[in-house]
Amino acid sequence: MSSSASPLLSEKQVDRILEANNDDYGGVIVEMTNEPMEAHVFVSLLRASLSHWRQLGKKGVWIKMPIELVNLVEPAVKEGFYYHHAESRYVMLVHWLPSTANTLPANASHRVGIGAFVMNEKNEVLVVQEKVGKTHGKGVWKFPTGVVDEGEDICNAAVREVKEETGIDSKFVEVIAFGQRHKSFFEKSDLFFVCMLQPLSFNLWPQEAEIEAAQWMPFEEYTAQPFVQKHEFLRYIADVCLAKKDRGYSGFSPVPMASSFSQTKSYLYLNRQGLDF
Amino acid sequence: MSSSASPLLSEKQVDRILEANNDDYGGVIVEMTNEPMEAHVFVSLLRASLSHWRQLGKKGVWIKMPIELVNLVEPAVKEGFYYHHAESRYVMLVHWLPSTANTLPANASHRVGIGAFVMNEKNEVLVVQEKVGKTHGKGVWKFPTGVVDEGEDICNAAVREVKEETGIDSKFVEVIAFGQRHKSFFEKSDLFFVCMLQPLSFNLWPQEAEIEAAQWMPFEEYTAQPFVQKHEFLRYIADVCLAKKDRGYSGFSPVPMASSFSQTKSYLYLNRQGLDF
Repeated sequence: MSSSASPLLSEKQVDRILEANNDDYGGVIVEMTNEPMEAHVFVSLLRASLSHWRQLGKKGVWIKMPIELVNLVEPAVKEGFYYHHAESRYVMLVHWLPSTANTLPANASHRVGIGAFVMNEKNEVLVVQEKVGKTHGKGVWKFPTGVVDEGEDICNAAVREVKEETGIDSKFVEVIAFGQRHKSFFEKSDLFFVCMLQPLSFNLWPQEAEIEAAQWMPFEEYTAQPFVQKHEFLRYIADVCLAKKDRGYSGFSPVPMASSFSQTKSYLYLNRQGLDF
Repeated sequence: MSSSASPLLSEKQVDRILEANNDDYGGVIVEMTNEPMEAHVFVSLLRASLSHWRQLGKKGVWIKMPIELVNLVEPAVKEGFYYHHAESRYVMLVHWLPSTANTLPANASHRVGIGAFVMNEKNEVLVVQEKVGKTHGKGVWKFPTGVVDEGEDICNAAVREVKEETGIDSKFVEVIAFGQRHKSFFEKSDLFFVCMLQPLSFNLWPQEAEIEAAQWMPFEEYTAQPFVQKHEFLRYIADVCLAKKDRGYSGFSPVPMASSFSQTKSYLYLNRQGLDF
């Protein structure tokens, strides 16, 4: 694809232009294929396209440029485009055509992580020592943690991380707290969900690549660690875990629903106890 | 900056290399300035630098490339770099040097939004009609909503959005529920926090640019709208608001703390009621 004569153009206008789809906000999206293209060909197509889109009153113009066409990034920038976001295999370029203020959607701003509070019937919590990171080699026992993948539900990510790091099967119960922190990674922010899970198996198979050791540890022993005691954040989390264990603390549990905002099933997390379900 | 002779190199090795800082994970970060550089000069520096970093056993190599140096993106990709992320004025390039599996941190995956439940003493909720978006022109009255900026706390974002959209001053009370949905914007996911706020002023000044109208509306009238009734997500939110209003529903409130993970103050959100503070 990447170029075609538009059937809507009159004879006089049959410059070849880039193939584009309309978005919901009065703009167009061009998805370039991996097919090699010389810069001068691209520039000629792009200029004709921009002129056409301007005549149509289009606002935002998006070009998803695969890394194979990295030779076209500089020419696009010279025609007024700038970066919107990038993933390993492509960069998304954007150009706002009108003279009015740019109302383009924001880029993703947060990474999302989970920490897993998993307790067995002997009041032992599931803890690990990591092979990498700031706590490596310090003898610190931590809850299993991990990153929620793009497109992954928080509740599923927690179950997956517990399984991957320790070999334990578990059932998601609740988000018992969450934290937000800034500038964790360049300018990006983090959201961190502390999840309670119920263990369904008990034999440990620590992950070779990332985990030094895993064990079931008495809860009091976990909280007594200097690492936990000296970090306000971890002390609070420990208090919440204790309240959950002993005093019926109520977190947010996931309610699956067919979202009108998305094609996929979504979860709403809320205090079911408080809602009297 | 962007190039300098390293004082650690022996005489024979005095190829000029790129100036880099070590990161916490055995890698190096190069922050290019806006100063123009020709591609062949950059390639020569980059090759010498990569060779040097390989000798030192470095793992991930990051290059933060301002858009002014877009001419150097293609040369970098040809030397083995690929995209990690991008913001409007720069692209972050990365290259994993070892033969072992890449353990580079993930890119930001989520955008974060808020919806504001603001009720006055007459059981009226603060609602708006938007000038743009899917509900425009349909007579739908919605809670004020908005995007949490990079580096902004959820609780502050909610207060800011209510003020911007309606002119109402308010005090943050609680996150009463949150939702996660996928593929909301290309491949990115959204997290959406429903926040309860207490109004501190009552005169409406709807925002010119984005808001068609704002009003205080009886809660029953809000929930009776077909738009709310036909969306499971909004019906649940309305149920949570009702439980909050009438039955002491307990959400998560922010607890400020000095985070050990970040230089800035962080908030942990938890069920204070359940914690018996």
